[in-house]
Amino acid sequence: MTRPSPPVALASGAEFDAIRAMVARWGNRAVGIGDDAAVVQVPRGDALVASVDSSIEQRHFRGDWLNAREIGYRAVTAALSDLAAMAAQPLGILVALVLPESRRAEIEALADGIGEAVTAAGTVVLGGNVTAGEALSLTTTVLGHAFAPLTRSGLQAGDALYVTGHFGGPGAALASWKSGHRLSDVHRERFARPVARLREARWLADRGATAAIDISDGLASDLEQLAVASAVGMDIDLAAVPLVEGVNGPIAAAASGEEYELIIGARSPMDTAGFERAFGIPLTAIGRAMSPDGGVIFRQGAERVAKPRGYDHLSR
Amino acid sequence: MTRPSPPVALASGAEFDAIRAMVARWGNRAVGIGDDAAVVQVPRGDALVASVDSSIEQRHFRGDWLNAREIGYRAVTAALSDLAAMAAQPLGILVALVLPESRRAEIEALADGIGEAVTAAGTVVLGGNVTAGEALSLTTTVLGHAFAPLTRSGLQAGDALYVTGHFGGPGAALASWKSGHRLSDVHRERFARPVARLREARWLADRGATAAIDISDGLASDLEQLAVASAVGMDIDLAAVPLVEGVNGPIAAAASGEEYELIIGARSPMDTAGFERAFGIPLTAIGRAMSPDGGVIFRQGAERVAKPRGYDHLSR
Repeated sequence: MTRPSPPVALASGAEFDAIRAMVARWGNRAVGIGDDAAVVQVPRGDALVASVDSSIEQRHFRGDWLNAREIGYRAVTAALSDLAAMAAQPLGILVALVLPESRRAEIEALADGIGEAVTAAGTVVLGGNVTAGEALSLTTTVLGHAFAPLTRSGLQAGDALYVTGHFGGPGAALASWKSGHRLSDVHRERFARPVARLREARWLADRGATAAIDISDGLASDLEQLAVASAVGMDIDLAAVPLVEGVNGPIAAAASGEEYELIIGARSPMDTAGFERAFGIPLTAIGRAMSPDGGVIFRQGAERVAKPRGYDHLSR
Repeated sequence: MTRPSPPVALASGAEFDAIRAMVARWGNRAVGIGDDAAVVQVPRGDALVASVDSSIEQRHFRGDWLNAREIGYRAVTAALSDLAAMAAQPLGILVALVLPESRRAEIEALADGIGEAVTAAGTVVLGGNVTAGEALSLTTTVLGHAFAPLTRSGLQAGDALYVTGHFGGPGAALASWKSGHRLSDVHRERFARPVARLREARWLADRGATAAIDISDGLASDLEQLAVASAVGMDIDLAAVPLVEGVNGPIAAAASGEEYELIIGARSPMDTAGFERAFGIPLTAIGRAMSPDGGVIFRQGAERVAKPRGYDHLSR
């Protein structure tokens, strides 16, 4: 089972010092670190759910936009969001950090951000790896468990489609940074401090959700992924999508990525009021799965619109 | 449970194309790829064993030393070696690949090397992630299971210490590359094509091994890690260490890293002849765990020698 970690019995060396510094910041949120691998019990009868996600400087963030604490928090939250998309309960994370010499002093701030993300998810750090390198990056492996993981392929024609939360914040932040226009605090916060919808996903799965995906490449692109995986078409009314204040309309919101909100399918109506009471964010019906013949159709009210573009990640 | 993968139902896009190209090379060695996370069953009663390892260009290898296939094979084998060090049976791997634009054409060769490594280990690719970036890197998460994982902390004073295989090849290859001297094919092969001692580890665990570590930072350094983790001293006779042909003596061999051989402890003598018959490599007694007071003592026959230096990874 899990063993309490500190003090980590590691010999001397710069990389071990970096690991020790991080583990000291994590305290009892670091579990069983220091052997060749982490050892974890998966609850009997449940499946293991595992995913990996990389967050790379100049690609997923810029050092002048986010501080080290935000970089750590955001990378781990993005990875945990994949567990939410499967309605899995986290078991813990492994973090592979590539740390340039020039950023050695930021190791504790990175650790604090990683620690905040695992605390928010009610989970722990099980292990990892620190290497010197040119560009700062965090590759986070998330481990979770679920009796019946929610997949992308469970939609049937006729299922209603819902989204959690408000849209457009990260896209608006990125647009402001790129154009040099004044950045709204709300938009920056949505970019820097996303939330993995872990508890929301389990609530929805318990109430009959049929499929789920988390939004990384933008609402429109990830709806399309879900449609392809489930072999269905879709009819989506973007006018229904809740917007973060100051976002320039539903087309911009549907092109905004790294939202880490969820799209879910449901065969019978969801208790949207109960969801909002439980989590303080909306659950909104935005359309339906259809027969595959029509493809994915986007509307704004009665008017058909072109598919919003995919999210323009930093350097893509 | 595991689902056969291809065709992967992913929408269009350069990163998805890269994933599809890799999955096509892996065939039935890719399992369940394409959802937000992999879903795997851990055998009932066993613990999950998980580790992550990064292999970064200019840090762990150079592109002019290894071809793409070797880079893929070596990165995944190094990661799988951590499962061997726990005597765990692999469940599968996740690969996070950072691929510079300039190396896009090498994706299939990388996939082939990754595929060879999972085939050698009798396991599969469960998922991953492809990102553009400046430096080629592979961060491999390995998932395995074991009823009683072999840790670093199980040694007691009096336990005999054994090593698998022959030593010094990777260190000799690195020295030749750095000095520009002629590189022995045998040394290059040991650098480029290490073997994760997965079956060997389970054989040893079944016969009462008390602790294990795999050799990444050099025999001497990793003996010290094992001693620290188990809170014991050691008395090591380096003259007993089997050498790869052409290696310049046991001190050089004990400083050679990325060997991926195992050090194990045993309370009663191991059947070294049976091991060699089963696996075609030696299992060699090199010393004993002692009371912690004396620290780790290295000898060459009767003569005491200084602790061999740690492995000089590429850019450390």
